[in-house]
Amino acid sequence: MLGQAITLIESDLASDQNLAQEIVEKCLPYSANSFRIGISGAPGCGKSTFIENFGLLLVEKGHKLAVLAVDPSSTISNGSILGDKTRMAELSMHPNAFIRPSPSGTMYGGINRMTREAIILCEAAGFDRIIIETVGVGQSEVIVGTMVDFFMVLMLAGAGDDIQGIKRGIIEMADALIFTKTDGDNALKVKATAQEFKRALELFPQKENGWKPEVLTCSALLQEGLDEIIILSNSFLDFTKSNKSFKQNRLNQQLEWLYQMVEQALKQLFYQHPTVKTCIAEAVDKIKSHEITPYKASQQLLDVFLHH
Amino acid sequence: MLGQAITLIESDLASDQNLAQEIVEKCLPYSANSFRIGISGAPGCGKSTFIENFGLLLVEKGHKLAVLAVDPSSTISNGSILGDKTRMAELSMHPNAFIRPSPSGTMYGGINRMTREAIILCEAAGFDRIIIETVGVGQSEVIVGTMVDFFMVLMLAGAGDDIQGIKRGIIEMADALIFTKTDGDNALKVKATAQEFKRALELFPQKENGWKPEVLTCSALLQEGLDEIIILSNSFLDFTKSNKSFKQNRLNQQLEWLYQMVEQALKQLFYQHPTVKTCIAEAVDKIKSHEITPYKASQQLLDVFLHH
Repeated sequence: MLGQAITLIESDLASDQNLAQEIVEKCLPYSANSFRIGISGAPGCGKSTFIENFGLLLVEKGHKLAVLAVDPSSTISNGSILGDKTRMAELSMHPNAFIRPSPSGTMYGGINRMTREAIILCEAAGFDRIIIETVGVGQSEVIVGTMVDFFMVLMLAGAGDDIQGIKRGIIEMADALIFTKTDGDNALKVKATAQEFKRALELFPQKENGWKPEVLTCSALLQEGLDEIIILSNSFLDFTKSNKSFKQNRLNQQLEWLYQMVEQALKQLFYQHPTVKTCIAEAVDKIKSHEITPYKASQQLLDVFLHH
Repeated sequence: MLGQAITLIESDLASDQNLAQEIVEKCLPYSANSFRIGISGAPGCGKSTFIENFGLLLVEKGHKLAVLAVDPSSTISNGSILGDKTRMAELSMHPNAFIRPSPSGTMYGGINRMTREAIILCEAAGFDRIIIETVGVGQSEVIVGTMVDFFMVLMLAGAGDDIQGIKRGIIEMADALIFTKTDGDNALKVKATAQEFKRALELFPQKENGWKPEVLTCSALLQEGLDEIIILSNSFLDFTKSNKSFKQNRLNQQLEWLYQMVEQALKQLFYQHPTVKTCIAEAVDKIKSHEITPYKASQQLLDVFLHH
């Protein structure tokens, strides 16, 4: 039934949407006991193996786990992540696990809304651990960062690109950096890189909620280090619940989401206004040739929007 | 005359504004030969002494230098930076230097526009080096970052707070970190901290324009290390001019500025709409009590905006 409700959310039909919104609304009051964990990682870092084994450990500990994917690239590659259930064969068979691939054929904005609503449905269905998985590409990480309580970034070391591989802003967003694949020949190198990042992170101040991002290592394959990651995430949960930042963060995320959607819709109205469209092209040309200041151009465009 | 024109820009009178906009527009074509340098630094890092001596060195080398300040705190403290000319006594007396304090009594948006326009006027008046100075507090750094070619952040080490003192995002924004006050007892400590940051910066990838942020040290008091900073800034200028990112960055900044102003004005129209105002308060309450999703709330608010 959960799967069907999510399908309703993803439907383009107006009648489906009305029903979907009604369901989501009824589910709203049941989200307080969940813990939303964002997991990001570039292709090759072993994300599927990690989620499979991390997830199995969670369900073994008695949790009910939902895994949702945010992967706009599946739009282009026609569902690269649709193989989720084969990727996580054992987890997907577990009675207390629910795995849902990213809705395909949709752009960021749509996936953003659908995922937020799917989270609410999963929580109302009794799932107390929600993993939002995303590829470490483009905007998707930022989007996931604004819908979870705890954000882990999986890091691949030893490929020679570990230093270049860290993207701007990722340290700002992550609550934990997890270096994967401490198995085989690379184990020492991974641990050394993790140490290096640990020292670098020391230079960063704690986050607003008082949390200091941690660096851990693991081998999902050998199931080493996964327990420590669960302990870390639980201590984050305790920490943010006790200093009230957990609840505050969720409310902030919801209000932020409200304002974002309003402003997105406003911009859409403006930039799709036919006369405005023509005038913007002209304004950009005039700015390029130094004929007009951006300030004056903006005033003219608004005038067009309001009066034409 | 330059001073008077900037006063016109800062005026609230509609007639002054019309004249000001006309002047700015006429000045637009004369900005290609300038180099806009942003300098940020928290109180106590020796910013005034740095700009005084760095600026004197620039004018000695034959440049014409304008120093503009972006300091919204002067709004609150009623012009903390109004003492600019006493702060930089020698530089302000130099015939090839022009120093202008931050317009007071204005909020971020206003200072942002006024400073952008003042830069254009200074360039048209023949100043080929423009320093935009800002305190390392709040939004002002981000604003300055979007209006300059080269951004330096002055860092204070040895006060025990050097590690905490680095703000999130600053590394992303800075083209150079300058550790000041390599004089007196702290010299060794400052240099050690600079080394530490140098290593930490190694972990960051180069910027989009191909530049890698550098770490330097100086004593503005002893006039040590200032030449190296000029050499570094000039090599940045050569580098970005030769790979065409200089011009591209300026155009991007102007278009970004256009879109920002349009969107700011749109939001203002929306949030100051009387019926919308009442409905937002109601929507926030309903979101808090889990009665409505942010998505549905946004749709209702837009409906109110468009039809009431």
